[in-house]
Amino acid sequence: MDRNRLSKQLDFLREIDKVKSVFRNTVLLDKSRRENDAEHSWHMAVCAMLFQEYANYNDLDMGKVLKMIMLHDIVEIYSGDTFAYDPAGRETQTEREKLAADKLFALLPDDQSKEFRALWDEFEECSTPESKYAHLVDRFMPIYHNYVTQGLKWREFGITKSQVLNRNQNIKEGSEEIWNYVCEIVEDAVAKGYLKDD
Amino acid sequence: MDRNRLSKQLDFLREIDKVKSVFRNTVLLDKSRRENDAEHSWHMAVCAMLFQEYANYNDLDMGKVLKMIMLHDIVEIYSGDTFAYDPAGRETQTEREKLAADKLFALLPDDQSKEFRALWDEFEECSTPESKYAHLVDRFMPIYHNYVTQGLKWREFGITKSQVLNRNQNIKEGSEEIWNYVCEIVEDAVAKGYLKDD
Repeated sequence: MDRNRLSKQLDFLREIDKVKSVFRNTVLLDKSRRENDAEHSWHMAVCAMLFQEYANYNDLDMGKVLKMIMLHDIVEIYSGDTFAYDPAGRETQTEREKLAADKLFALLPDDQSKEFRALWDEFEECSTPESKYAHLVDRFMPIYHNYVTQGLKWREFGITKSQVLNRNQNIKEGSEEIWNYVCEIVEDAVAKGYLKDD
Repeated sequence: MDRNRLSKQLDFLREIDKVKSVFRNTVLLDKSRRENDAEHSWHMAVCAMLFQEYANYNDLDMGKVLKMIMLHDIVEIYSGDTFAYDPAGRETQTEREKLAADKLFALLPDDQSKEFRALWDEFEECSTPESKYAHLVDRFMPIYHNYVTQGLKWREFGITKSQVLNRNQNIKEGSEEIWNYVCEIVEDAVAKGYLKDD
């Protein structure tokens, strides 16, 4: 065992503990508090396990999907969480997150730095079946959390139906079936007053 | 898409949100609060990705390892977290957790209920390479958290060196190399007064 190598791996493991303190604009289903990125990543992974049958793609490499999910938000310990409906934040998001990724993955031994960065880049680029599927789950979770919590955060920020549909339409690249379900709950959310019509 | 099937999958997805409110006897590395099972499962998964090279086994199915990790603690929404050094709690733990698993996995469609239960059982039985490896990471995390936080919870509960070594010796079935490292940090923890000698 190369102790210098282990030491770098442990530096990374300690640093990412901060992900547990990056809070999102989504609440727990009991509405007691906002959830953080670590909790979201775990919940998203179980959702990915549950929804595989609805993916547009057969033979997904689920090991790779789960690895991407575990890493997809960790750069937010430096760049912060960017709210889905914050256009100014979205404008600088890619640049901020790339700088954060450069800093964070540099903690690792070279080979693992490349491996983890490649997984993170693949998720960001969203051009492979695994990354499209992982993205769908990432987008589905906050919509579903909002729906189950009677639109708590949608109402707080005055979000409209077209904002939700425009922002999340790449769900259909991961799963046509889940996209159809999302369109239904969005209509139902409007009917129930959880989401503004426009 | 079978809506009755999706409905069961979503029932499960909502129910396990409660994992985010099951708190463990381990603190965040900044000592600000205890961590919960969802955060622990996420952190453990990244550790499993980092430590694969130290596993006693080649060709681990990492997809299966990650799935087991995602599910290994979810029954605690009914059975509660059992502290590693609570002998009375440990005595009833298996029975309590099996009842919890019966209840929780019953929410799912039959095929997924069997699939998820099989992963949970495999982790519990700890007889395959993947489950032994997942167990090593589950045991390593709280030891390392305690070590980094100057033995915060070890000191609070008056834990001794032999308790830590006896309780966690199955780490070596997952990785001899990580077990050797654990033995070293335990010695160092004793020397620094983080852990009682006995």
